[in-house]
Amino acid sequence: VKQNKYDDPAFFEAYGQLLRSRAGLAGAGEWHAFRALLPDLRGRRVLDLGCGFGWHCRYARKQGARAITGVDLSERMLARAREMTIGSGILYVQCAIEDIQFDPGSFDIVLSSLAFHYVERFDLLAARVHRWLAEEGKFIFSVEHPIFTASQAGQDWWRSPEGQILHWPVDAYQAEGVRSTNWLADNVVKYHRTVATYVNSLLDAGFRLDRLLEPEPDPGLLRDRPDWQDETRRPMFLILAASKDQL
Amino acid sequence: VKQNKYDDPAFFEAYGQLLRSRAGLAGAGEWHAFRALLPDLRGRRVLDLGCGFGWHCRYARKQGARAITGVDLSERMLARAREMTIGSGILYVQCAIEDIQFDPGSFDIVLSSLAFHYVERFDLLAARVHRWLAEEGKFIFSVEHPIFTASQAGQDWWRSPEGQILHWPVDAYQAEGVRSTNWLADNVVKYHRTVATYVNSLLDAGFRLDRLLEPEPDPGLLRDRPDWQDETRRPMFLILAASKDQL
Repeated sequence: VKQNKYDDPAFFEAYGQLLRSRAGLAGAGEWHAFRALLPDLRGRRVLDLGCGFGWHCRYARKQGARAITGVDLSERMLARAREMTIGSGILYVQCAIEDIQFDPGSFDIVLSSLAFHYVERFDLLAARVHRWLAEEGKFIFSVEHPIFTASQAGQDWWRSPEGQILHWPVDAYQAEGVRSTNWLADNVVKYHRTVATYVNSLLDAGFRLDRLLEPEPDPGLLRDRPDWQDETRRPMFLILAASKDQL
Repeated sequence: VKQNKYDDPAFFEAYGQLLRSRAGLAGAGEWHAFRALLPDLRGRRVLDLGCGFGWHCRYARKQGARAITGVDLSERMLARAREMTIGSGILYVQCAIEDIQFDPGSFDIVLSSLAFHYVERFDLLAARVHRWLAEEGKFIFSVEHPIFTASQAGQDWWRSPEGQILHWPVDAYQAEGVRSTNWLADNVVKYHRTVATYVNSLLDAGFRLDRLLEPEPDPGLLRDRPDWQDETRRPMFLILAASKDQL
């Protein structure tokens, strides 16, 4: 299933209202943690899988990356990305993450932010990214945390009859596969996977794991957002950093 | 806090009734996954941290390990371990995991089964184990899964008013530290840690991560235990395997 909700006008409109869409990386609660894992980008060839509005691509350009490729399935998102991208240096490509192909050793760094939970087979993807990376290349990505996606009840908090948040309900953790949610729109298809599958798929592809993060939201953003105060009660995101070893 | 509940007669009695205490490794739901991560033990020096009744030590001896050391804080457990150990080849040492010291390079393989959630500082422990291992040594251990220990409600399922299991309640995931539970006895002190802390403590100590498992119970045991049918709804155990690189 390669659902393209981001080209659905209502979904696109709702997505555009999120703080992360309006404020970019500065409005993304996990960016402080993600950025800390990035190597020096100067002179490097960078690929962003699921680039959306192109925030990470433009950040890479600002940091002096030599060549930047952003891939996304959504025509609307890429149109907006191009609008916001002044000057050249970034190649935007419209394609599903599952379908795109590159030559071996094409990139030094492959990034992805909150896109892979839309991809059915992470094991196949990890093997492809490993081929596309040069020796000592880095792969850094975030996904919705398996604790988050394991919730069966519409991926929402469990509340008291009075509406108070009680806890986060985890269920069917071992049952990997499609979870239909109502995030921003009805029937958004996401794939639940275990932490083990994310990590072991990287290891099986030949990566060395460098870091596993379950970040709390940026303390600065947390201060300004009373509606985020419960975000420390369960991890929302999982961030993994891995390296392709020298041969 | 180095609580020694296993020398509390009531706790010890209750622990002795568990399937894993009566049947040994064959009665431990995660043993099939743990065993699959063990390297060839023949001729190797093996340390078991929190050896309890000595099941893993005797398994290592059966597999041809050259020297086996079992460490446990509980006098009662070690007494039982010695009773069940016929012949020599295993050195049982009574000491807290936090206090024991060995010379650098003393072991080829360090194991631990469901003991480290009683240890306050896993980062310090990981660094010590790294020193005790010879080059290319292996460190394989299981702990209660952070999803399991993150439950605030006495580490139990969330149930309907009629008593039916609804889901597993996760809360205060980011708040690492003491969780008091009533497992087998009142006020058993365990330490909750995130998956990230377990993994990154290994990486920071210099280990390479080889595997991360969140095993479902052994299918054979699951068939015989109607009371285990909900065990696939949330992971109970986390198993990590790591290597000390060649210098």
